[in-house]
Amino acid sequence: MKLATLRTDGTTKAVRLDGDVLVDLGFPDVGTLLAQDDWAALAAAPAGDATTYPAEGADLAPVVPQPSKVVCVGLNYRNHIQEMGRDLPEHPTLFAKFADSLIGATDDIVRPEETEQFDWEVELAVVVGKQVRRAKGEQAEQAIAGFTVLNDITTRDWQFRTREWLQGKTWDSTTPVGPYLVTPDELPGGVRPALDVTLTVDDEVMQSDNTGDLLFDPVALVEYVSTVIRLNPGDIIATGTPGGVGHARKPGRYLLGGEKVVTEIQGIGRLENKVVEEKQAR
Amino acid sequence: MKLATLRTDGTTKAVRLDGDVLVDLGFPDVGTLLAQDDWAALAAAPAGDATTYPAEGADLAPVVPQPSKVVCVGLNYRNHIQEMGRDLPEHPTLFAKFADSLIGATDDIVRPEETEQFDWEVELAVVVGKQVRRAKGEQAEQAIAGFTVLNDITTRDWQFRTREWLQGKTWDSTTPVGPYLVTPDELPGGVRPALDVTLTVDDEVMQSDNTGDLLFDPVALVEYVSTVIRLNPGDIIATGTPGGVGHARKPGRYLLGGEKVVTEIQGIGRLENKVVEEKQAR
Repeated sequence: MKLATLRTDGTTKAVRLDGDVLVDLGFPDVGTLLAQDDWAALAAAPAGDATTYPAEGADLAPVVPQPSKVVCVGLNYRNHIQEMGRDLPEHPTLFAKFADSLIGATDDIVRPEETEQFDWEVELAVVVGKQVRRAKGEQAEQAIAGFTVLNDITTRDWQFRTREWLQGKTWDSTTPVGPYLVTPDELPGGVRPALDVTLTVDDEVMQSDNTGDLLFDPVALVEYVSTVIRLNPGDIIATGTPGGVGHARKPGRYLLGGEKVVTEIQGIGRLENKVVEEKQAR
Repeated sequence: MKLATLRTDGTTKAVRLDGDVLVDLGFPDVGTLLAQDDWAALAAAPAGDATTYPAEGADLAPVVPQPSKVVCVGLNYRNHIQEMGRDLPEHPTLFAKFADSLIGATDDIVRPEETEQFDWEVELAVVVGKQVRRAKGEQAEQAIAGFTVLNDITTRDWQFRTREWLQGKTWDSTTPVGPYLVTPDELPGGVRPALDVTLTVDDEVMQSDNTGDLLFDPVALVEYVSTVIRLNPGDIIATGTPGGVGHARKPGRYLLGGEKVVTEIQGIGRLENKVVEEKQAR
């Protein structure tokens, strides 16, 4: 199944993609749907006479608009870690984003006036479907509702102002996430999917890798994060980015107003966002 | 005014402390109250025939149970930074906690089985009363609803597993916050209060300082954080801790089951929490 949160008539609706239409599932967004114990059955119910909307050109919100947690993982692609000359880490590096940083799959990415180093990071994101704490093995697998695409937009100058990355990672309304939550049964590798990930800026390929290269796979991350704190339905774990970010280039290559960023994961979908300069007076 | 979130009859209520009673304000918690544009007038309304509860022995929830953000600040007491031999930083170091880490003013602090280095940090916490972005000066001052006390309980071994602190800072149900939100008009220094802060473990004083020593004061922090991301009513900024944490002692001194931690700020109130060992099977 492919699920999304559709903006329509000044509100949002949880929808399922059936061919070329989106079927209204009767919940205000995917987060609310996932909070139902039987969400999978509810999401799979026959369309019947439910309202439908054309999928093409749909205005999608963040697939989960208000997750209680967005946990992000630092270096996690083996070949990228090794090309940087680092040892493979024993533990995942975790940092946070706040929900107010999230935007929809085709929303503009607003480049703040305060940064000179506005960068991209394609990431496979896990969406949690069940409350778990200290989940192990099968329980962790079953806590994964599905996967989506996240572009972990980063202000590098702020990320490296201090030793903690948060202030470079959680700018308001900068992180597209979506378009769909895709359930593991639709993906090669299931809850440990092996999928091509790519990111282009104005059609130039900047990042290209495969999620099969993840050092800490989605199940391991659910186990690790849920050791520390409960995971709730709708929570998002962004699994890290492969090589090819702008900051690692010589010279650095950063996003500017007018550029188009396409973030795509095979079998899940694409984020297509225009970068716009912030005009807001300070 | 002193406001709190009271647990009663299986639910919670926003209350005001009037002498030795808590007056029901008609909102489910302080976060919901602060989301009203006229919260200050609503909170100050005459008690009339509102339900009251005895303040003594009240079971208080986290003063804001579900803030959209808990932003924490690293080293921020001048004398502590200088005693550590560091230069005063140009920018505040920010990291996050998730709301699921918060507990009430007298709740037990559950020590996870996974840590050997369970530490304390007394902090003055700002509670936001108004949505702001890029707030400056007076606007930032007016966005401060008041102050509360937060004990930024930390698993040092997890904090320093990787370069990012989050995994040592956001263990489930470990961070007491409360007892009251105290409005700035009741505090010497107002929105830049100068208050004694202390933390004791089994009556031994471990931390003792004054919030007048903060390098980045509450108004400066609202300005800085709101540059990055909007602040919403109920959001919490924990302003950092002075010297005296267990990890900086030789040898390290960590919390164990059965110990009592008292975290107190002059004019605001005290958190009094027993540490209990986690018995949960893994």
